[in-house]
Amino acid sequence: MLTVDYIFTNAIVLTMDPRLTQYNPGAVAISGNKIAAVGPQEEILLNHSGGEVIDCQGKVLMPGLINGHTHVPMNLLRGLADDLRLDVWLQGYMLPVERQFVSPDFVRLGTLLACAELIRSGVTTFCDMYYFEEEVAKGAEQAGLRAICGETILKFPTPDAQSYEEALTMTRDFIQRWKGHPRIIATVAPHAPYTCTEEILRACAQLAVKFDVPLLIHIAETRQELEASLNEHGMPVVPYTKKMNIFDAKVIAAHCVHIDEGEMHTMHRFNASIVHNPSSNLKLGSGIAPVKRMLDLGLDIGIGTDGVASNNDLDMFEEMRLASFIAKGSTSDPTVLPAVTVLQMATCMGAKALHLDHLTGSLQPGKAADLILVDIEKPHNIPNFRRDPAGIYAQLVYAAKSTDVTDVMIDGQIVFREQKLLTLQEDELFVRAQDYARQIDAFLLEREGSVLAKLIAIGGTSEEESFEVQVKIPLQDIRSILDQLDKPDIEILRQRHYKEYDTYFSFDDRDQGWLRYREDHFIAPNGEVTHVRNRLTHIGVTGEHHFPQQVLLSRSRFIAPATQSLRFYREYFKPSREFEIDKERLRFLIRYQDTEFYINLDTMITPAIGAYLEVKSRTWSRKDAEHKSEIIPLLVAYLGVNPEQSLSDDYIEMVK
Amino acid sequence: MLTVDYIFTNAIVLTMDPRLTQYNPGAVAISGNKIAAVGPQEEILLNHSGGEVIDCQGKVLMPGLINGHTHVPMNLLRGLADDLRLDVWLQGYMLPVERQFVSPDFVRLGTLLACAELIRSGVTTFCDMYYFEEEVAKGAEQAGLRAICGETILKFPTPDAQSYEEALTMTRDFIQRWKGHPRIIATVAPHAPYTCTEEILRACAQLAVKFDVPLLIHIAETRQELEASLNEHGMPVVPYTKKMNIFDAKVIAAHCVHIDEGEMHTMHRFNASIVHNPSSNLKLGSGIAPVKRMLDLGLDIGIGTDGVASNNDLDMFEEMRLASFIAKGSTSDPTVLPAVTVLQMATCMGAKALHLDHLTGSLQPGKAADLILVDIEKPHNIPNFRRDPAGIYAQLVYAAKSTDVTDVMIDGQIVFREQKLLTLQEDELFVRAQDYARQIDAFLLEREGSVLAKLIAIGGTSEEESFEVQVKIPLQDIRSILDQLDKPDIEILRQRHYKEYDTYFSFDDRDQGWLRYREDHFIAPNGEVTHVRNRLTHIGVTGEHHFPQQVLLSRSRFIAPATQSLRFYREYFKPSREFEIDKERLRFLIRYQDTEFYINLDTMITPAIGAYLEVKSRTWSRKDAEHKSEIIPLLVAYLGVNPEQSLSDDYIEMVK
Repeated sequence: MLTVDYIFTNAIVLTMDPRLTQYNPGAVAISGNKIAAVGPQEEILLNHSGGEVIDCQGKVLMPGLINGHTHVPMNLLRGLADDLRLDVWLQGYMLPVERQFVSPDFVRLGTLLACAELIRSGVTTFCDMYYFEEEVAKGAEQAGLRAICGETILKFPTPDAQSYEEALTMTRDFIQRWKGHPRIIATVAPHAPYTCTEEILRACAQLAVKFDVPLLIHIAETRQELEASLNEHGMPVVPYTKKMNIFDAKVIAAHCVHIDEGEMHTMHRFNASIVHNPSSNLKLGSGIAPVKRMLDLGLDIGIGTDGVASNNDLDMFEEMRLASFIAKGSTSDPTVLPAVTVLQMATCMGAKALHLDHLTGSLQPGKAADLILVDIEKPHNIPNFRRDPAGIYAQLVYAAKSTDVTDVMIDGQIVFREQKLLTLQEDELFVRAQDYARQIDAFLLEREGSVLAKLIAIGGTSEEESFEVQVKIPLQDIRSILDQLDKPDIEILRQRHYKEYDTYFSFDDRDQGWLRYREDHFIAPNGEVTHVRNRLTHIGVTGEHHFPQQVLLSRSRFIAPATQSLRFYREYFKPSREFEIDKERLRFLIRYQDTEFYINLDTMITPAIGAYLEVKSRTWSRKDAEHKSEIIPLLVAYLGVNPEQSLSDDYIEMVK
Repeated sequence: MLTVDYIFTNAIVLTMDPRLTQYNPGAVAISGNKIAAVGPQEEILLNHSGGEVIDCQGKVLMPGLINGHTHVPMNLLRGLADDLRLDVWLQGYMLPVERQFVSPDFVRLGTLLACAELIRSGVTTFCDMYYFEEEVAKGAEQAGLRAICGETILKFPTPDAQSYEEALTMTRDFIQRWKGHPRIIATVAPHAPYTCTEEILRACAQLAVKFDVPLLIHIAETRQELEASLNEHGMPVVPYTKKMNIFDAKVIAAHCVHIDEGEMHTMHRFNASIVHNPSSNLKLGSGIAPVKRMLDLGLDIGIGTDGVASNNDLDMFEEMRLASFIAKGSTSDPTVLPAVTVLQMATCMGAKALHLDHLTGSLQPGKAADLILVDIEKPHNIPNFRRDPAGIYAQLVYAAKSTDVTDVMIDGQIVFREQKLLTLQEDELFVRAQDYARQIDAFLLEREGSVLAKLIAIGGTSEEESFEVQVKIPLQDIRSILDQLDKPDIEILRQRHYKEYDTYFSFDDRDQGWLRYREDHFIAPNGEVTHVRNRLTHIGVTGEHHFPQQVLLSRSRFIAPATQSLRFYREYFKPSREFEIDKERLRFLIRYQDTEFYINLDTMITPAIGAYLEVKSRTWSRKDAEHKSEIIPLLVAYLGVNPEQSLSDDYIEMVK
């Protein structure tokens, strides 16, 4: 007779062991943080005593679920922005908000919120990547969860590190501090091959190998990532990653949507595992990972929710169902990924994918007591067919809901009992979370209220403001002017030829001004396009002043390199109207009366509204502007053009 | 000041009206079964009084969800059989169980179970197709739901009608009996173009037009259905359906997974609507309907769960989320089917798809009071961003769960209050449902225990049992025998030449005998294959008896045409081993000593084990068998072969 701490009785016990043993009625005995025995109820009760006996009332008793990939602090950003393309979502919303708000407090609060949701939905282990990951570790410890916590390392400055060297040092300390913790594994997470340099990837692999911790990374999430890898490195993502020695470590690779069979073989050979994120991959339009093929090749595949900012919840029951559904749907084969397989992916195989199967993922004596109770007699799960042992897995995967989880034990500690969370004060967390949401809403509302603020939010520090004095005069023909430029008082300092393709965005609120997306195609003397430059210019409506003869002190302009696509800006700024203006431009930087001016000789293509002379000069002071506005009419006359014909309109105003 | 029956206050009111008006804090006033007013709380309270004031405590108040396609009585078959191919699932499990169990009692109970699940998950209207549909109508009436109930008509006998004429008469009576009911519309549901005859389709259309009721039908659910339509009718499913006058009626077409743009245009022109069933289509591997394209063309599209036998629950929150996810995933465009659009599909557009938008689907004065409260401050739905009006739709579609619905009112009646179901006694329903499950399990267990019973279960009435007397003798060469057949005592009655491709299934339990799937390729004198016949034979192990000289009274045999594919039988019977035997056979029906015998001259191809003479005769009596067993050795000797060389083994026993 063995003395134990808990005996769970009267349960349908699904061990998820290699033989998929089930006991009904079954029982599980717990001693300390470990499973002491699993078996038929009668046998367990005969051989064990002491502690508390918990009557499971016919519920399913099974291993806790394993969420193989997430970013728990992002629980604070749930529903921040949806139905957007990845770049708009990331560059337009996530990164600006993260830059502004992510702090140790934010990370800790987001983690605790997530832990509440995870425990309530039957998750006992999660694998995380974020910034200030030490706070994630502390939060998981506080909530009683088991976790692998990966400090994210990027080639850019992050909310918690100005440089990757700083991040690496911090991560080394982080790993050492948590080494030996019974539930928490601190480790390193190079974000992705395309967001890290070769140096970072190699350094991260070394670190993971040195401390024998798993290495977390995103791999081949999108088609664009695959294509960029082919272009830049001449190989797909996995071979490149291998070249960086990443697979020397125990790799846990999230996504792997766009990998081929050769890459799967490579990952299998190096004992790397994959975490499949069905709803995130669908919702962001990334694609459907070839999970069936991966399983056939023997890869260990876990299931993850990804962060709730993209997927909107941490519901592993939904992810299991979806994993099965999309595998069937995408292969047109309903026998693919049956319920039992996805349940394995979320338990025993998921544990193997996290290199934790010695510890958790199945109900076997000696493993950690990580288990849950699920009520499968809810109105949405009646009736129960029992002739086929696979039926119970189908009930759990296809009909059960995360809200049917009633009890959770992790590492021998009951953290959720009869749907009461025992380790966290949820109400207080919710109040603080709503407060963050209000602050973030206010931050974004202020930004959304101004095109310029939105531009600055995504542009980083590269924008510059300028004012211009300018005249514009219609021409019959630009050739007459070209001859005039040879006259003695004009010194040509620089000369360019290009085609300019402009898209102007306008907004219902006219005070927002215009936003111009310009493609400059530089044309060499032989007529070839030598390079293309994309620029974004915000043309404000304030600050205009007319000098005599239509010389204009123009509106404020913010100019920034357009690092994103036109499509991105369209979806991000949501203009009410758009206009296209294309022209061929000869541009001269000249000196006249000791003053520098730009002379543009423009031949309008779309719309074909003729040719124009523009004389412009940037200026930063009122006095300088007045001075230049006096010289401009003289220069125009010197070029043989009547300054009286000056127009004050910008092209967009002539066209719109 | 208007006197009303209920005022819901302190809610986030989502009207789902054409302008997507929201009020927060908003209120809704109910008078009788109608919405009297919707607006800002202050305004509603100022102008309305009387009745009960219900404080919604900041929950979302929105139109009830509309489940556009389901088979509610199948709630009793939830989880009966999963992860199977459509034909195995349908022919192997659903149809045999339905033949055995579906009765008015079964339909009524299944309906009530489903109504409990529907109401709990926020559904106020559903559209159904099944047998004994009158019981569905009664059940929906009892539960307080709004429903369109379509009596299913097929070209085969159904559980409730021996012929389609009978079904049509019954349906006409059914429609007339319920005409004018405030919540229930009784109507006609020709199952699908491929399961109805032309006569049925035309008659159903006439009936629907005559009584001005919608017509429910499955259209283009699978690729096979499309291909069969192209083969048989020379056109896709929609043009064929149109030719049958179906679109004269107000059509509600479920699935439409495999229709092209021309077909969408046709449906649009005839004001036919579509109900999208994302999880059923995925789980059965049917494909992904081109919903984005349909919406762009202006079609009205609802969302349905399909029956729980295929999808495993009636959760419209899941279906909404999935509809959005798979549209994004399949188009690689995360902006497609944003949250608000799928919420429209499940409410106002769903009502339009059911031709019920004059009555329900949005919160507008004059419409029926069909509404629900959803708690969106659950742990899995925190925090709440409010700067963007679309955010609340995203919260409902991407993070809310059906279990967050707290209250439901249908046609002015509160049927679910603070998560208590007021119209049904659920416990009693559950007990009766579990009893059905036990009976069905027992029925299937008995059948699964016997290959023959499984064969009979799917074969209908076409199988026949036979016994054979036979000898088999190895030959050097079949040509020598061919000459002998010209001898005077032998009269050749018929002669055939074919190749036979046999697959034998064996089972762990040897008593189950063998199952043989045979493809007979009939070969004309010019060597061409004229036709192919597939037959399934169950070869029992009982009843063997050896007569002298290895004349064998063979095992019992059940022979049935093999209407399904080899793959079907493999997945349905789950053999433990398989064997292939291919041979070329010359088969003669001859008369010898006034007795008919078959002579087979077999040249074995796979495996290449030589040539054989078989002499066989079917028999039904012991006396006849003895008589024939005496003649056979004489015939063999007459053919110049030594009867002493007879083998008693069947080919499969020589090979296995």
